[in-house]
Amino acid sequence: MFNFSFQNPTKIIFGKEQIAALTNNIPPDSKVLLLYGAGSIKRNGVYQQVTAALSDFTWLEFSGIEPNPSFETLMQAADLVRREKIDFLLAVGGGSVIDGAKFIAAAAVFEGDAWQILAEGAKVTSAISLGCVLTLPATGTESNGNSVVTRYETQQKLAFSSPLVYPKFAILDPTVTFSLPVKQVANGVVDAFIHVIEQYLTYPVNSPVQDRFAEGLLQTLIEQGPLALSQPDDYDVRANIMWAATMALNGLIGQGVPQDWSTHMIGHELTACYGLDHAQTLAIVLPALLQQQRRQKREKLLQYGRRVWQLQGTNEEHIIDQAIANTKAFFQQMGVPTQLADYDLSAAAIDTVVAKLVQHKMVKLGEHGDITPDVAQQILQQAM
Amino acid sequence: MFNFSFQNPTKIIFGKEQIAALTNNIPPDSKVLLLYGAGSIKRNGVYQQVTAALSDFTWLEFSGIEPNPSFETLMQAADLVRREKIDFLLAVGGGSVIDGAKFIAAAAVFEGDAWQILAEGAKVTSAISLGCVLTLPATGTESNGNSVVTRYETQQKLAFSSPLVYPKFAILDPTVTFSLPVKQVANGVVDAFIHVIEQYLTYPVNSPVQDRFAEGLLQTLIEQGPLALSQPDDYDVRANIMWAATMALNGLIGQGVPQDWSTHMIGHELTACYGLDHAQTLAIVLPALLQQQRRQKREKLLQYGRRVWQLQGTNEEHIIDQAIANTKAFFQQMGVPTQLADYDLSAAAIDTVVAKLVQHKMVKLGEHGDITPDVAQQILQQAM
Repeated sequence: MFNFSFQNPTKIIFGKEQIAALTNNIPPDSKVLLLYGAGSIKRNGVYQQVTAALSDFTWLEFSGIEPNPSFETLMQAADLVRREKIDFLLAVGGGSVIDGAKFIAAAAVFEGDAWQILAEGAKVTSAISLGCVLTLPATGTESNGNSVVTRYETQQKLAFSSPLVYPKFAILDPTVTFSLPVKQVANGVVDAFIHVIEQYLTYPVNSPVQDRFAEGLLQTLIEQGPLALSQPDDYDVRANIMWAATMALNGLIGQGVPQDWSTHMIGHELTACYGLDHAQTLAIVLPALLQQQRRQKREKLLQYGRRVWQLQGTNEEHIIDQAIANTKAFFQQMGVPTQLADYDLSAAAIDTVVAKLVQHKMVKLGEHGDITPDVAQQILQQAM
Repeated sequence: MFNFSFQNPTKIIFGKEQIAALTNNIPPDSKVLLLYGAGSIKRNGVYQQVTAALSDFTWLEFSGIEPNPSFETLMQAADLVRREKIDFLLAVGGGSVIDGAKFIAAAAVFEGDAWQILAEGAKVTSAISLGCVLTLPATGTESNGNSVVTRYETQQKLAFSSPLVYPKFAILDPTVTFSLPVKQVANGVVDAFIHVIEQYLTYPVNSPVQDRFAEGLLQTLIEQGPLALSQPDDYDVRANIMWAATMALNGLIGQGVPQDWSTHMIGHELTACYGLDHAQTLAIVLPALLQQQRRQKREKLLQYGRRVWQLQGTNEEHIIDQAIANTKAFFQQMGVPTQLADYDLSAAAIDTVVAKLVQHKMVKLGEHGDITPDVAQQILQQAM
């Protein structure tokens, strides 16, 4: 196991009818900016619950944060924060709204051009406090310090991290996910699954706690994911997916172990160039990447096959083949396609994506830094 | 899954040569009180590393915190904190020193008789900040808000909890555990194992994430515990036990699920009355308790047997018998006896312990509240 330092200060408030708890978790006398997306929270009653809980506060709202939140939109919100002297951000939505809120929190008090936070890794030295009500389990952003923002004019999808943008609290009420569109539920399960894989399926460093936690999350998502599609009103299923998705990327399972994240880096370019959903890109890239990296990931692929998929026997190549095939079949079972051709993307798209990787200096990806642009090209060709 | 609220703010600093990191994790200009036990930290070099890292601070020390830390000793330290206007406590040791530091942190600023915190559950409304360097993986106290203190004059072993006494940081360097006596290593593994069992082996509430995390910790302790005895200088083994013990009682695996803790409550009385080590009492009580509660815990006992011990077949009674027998054999393999008679305790001791449970109002223990004094008597008789 590698050395590590880990701290996750977010308070998780989990369960039925917990949205009202936000009243007691926002500092008294705060001036609050409520942030949300396209307005689905008005149709499912979440907006009404949130605004009722805000009745003791002075608050404003800013809506229209996009899926893959845009730098341009977020900067408008940051201006509003400064202008109105907001001192607490309440993000209500999925990963995009919460990621957006984190960037707004940092950008509103950043001295200079806030684009530098994303483009140049400029250090975040202060941020407005934020809390969130999660409506879509997927990204884990509700209890980590990570944010991904897209600049549409330059087709750049870039990330930043800071301990200062961890939500102070995250309210996770599984009942609010009952009304999610099937596609979003499926994307969320696939996204969470691949977050675990990125921190688990690398090479062994003798870390049985981290490994078994990761395997437990994967098994839970494999078992509960399809149930969320077939039994959309089952509270326990929704709760288990919600908790698994949070645990998948709150930092815990990745402590002390190597991490990959190449599937995400390649996937981000696919989203930025062709507008595919984040999870859709991951479901395309991962199976092909595991196939291409089967030598480097051999020991963990075998462990994954045996423990997560209960594959037996002594034919190791067969176990690896089957583990990758099962992974792909799981994404398809969730209704998420796994080939570029499913989105009518051709060889030209591969060249475009690889060129973007080069442009963004993503030329040594993966836990060994051996996924060069050439290798990324091979992976995407396998994913045609 | 039940509703829950979870927050764990402790920063974990894990790995080789991490003690020096305390310099940057204690607030600058703090006046520090270094707390430790009988002085083993002077023999294994930890004291020297800690004091070197404290060179930029004004600091005092208070030693002699006992195993099962005594109210009387801790109140002397609390007086010193007040007298010297200490503003940071640094606990260096195992569970007893850290538990003791938490009580000192609360008692030093408590208005009135600090015994009320333990005896009457008086609310802790402020506390001195504390951090810790853990030298003995076992109790999980390094990243939770719990503390157990013993008043020797009345043979009372009582607990309190407060979010205000979570350590700000916990430094976990597995190399400092190389020199631990075998008995302490074994006790630590058994203690951590039973912490997991108390939060896992109850009744099912459809919580696969919590269950699989618990099972992963149990499997890790079963696999790594004996290796710590046979290969005492193996860094990875020590690291895995240390991380498992922290995860066993940092609150995470117990969220949203029923909890038992009756083994601990009965065990505390055994320690208070007869001076047995904490883990020794647990190893005696648990197997007998599982046997006595096999009907109530049936579903989870089967899951435990199948998943943790890989027991197969359709004879459910046999699986439960074998799961309990394996648990007992594991404690014995770690060198921790599992019968009262191993400590020359007789039927009279059982009466004494049960009378203490009654005196401390511990009359409805367990996840169903059905472990009455009569049932506790039966359990202890089974453990003769």
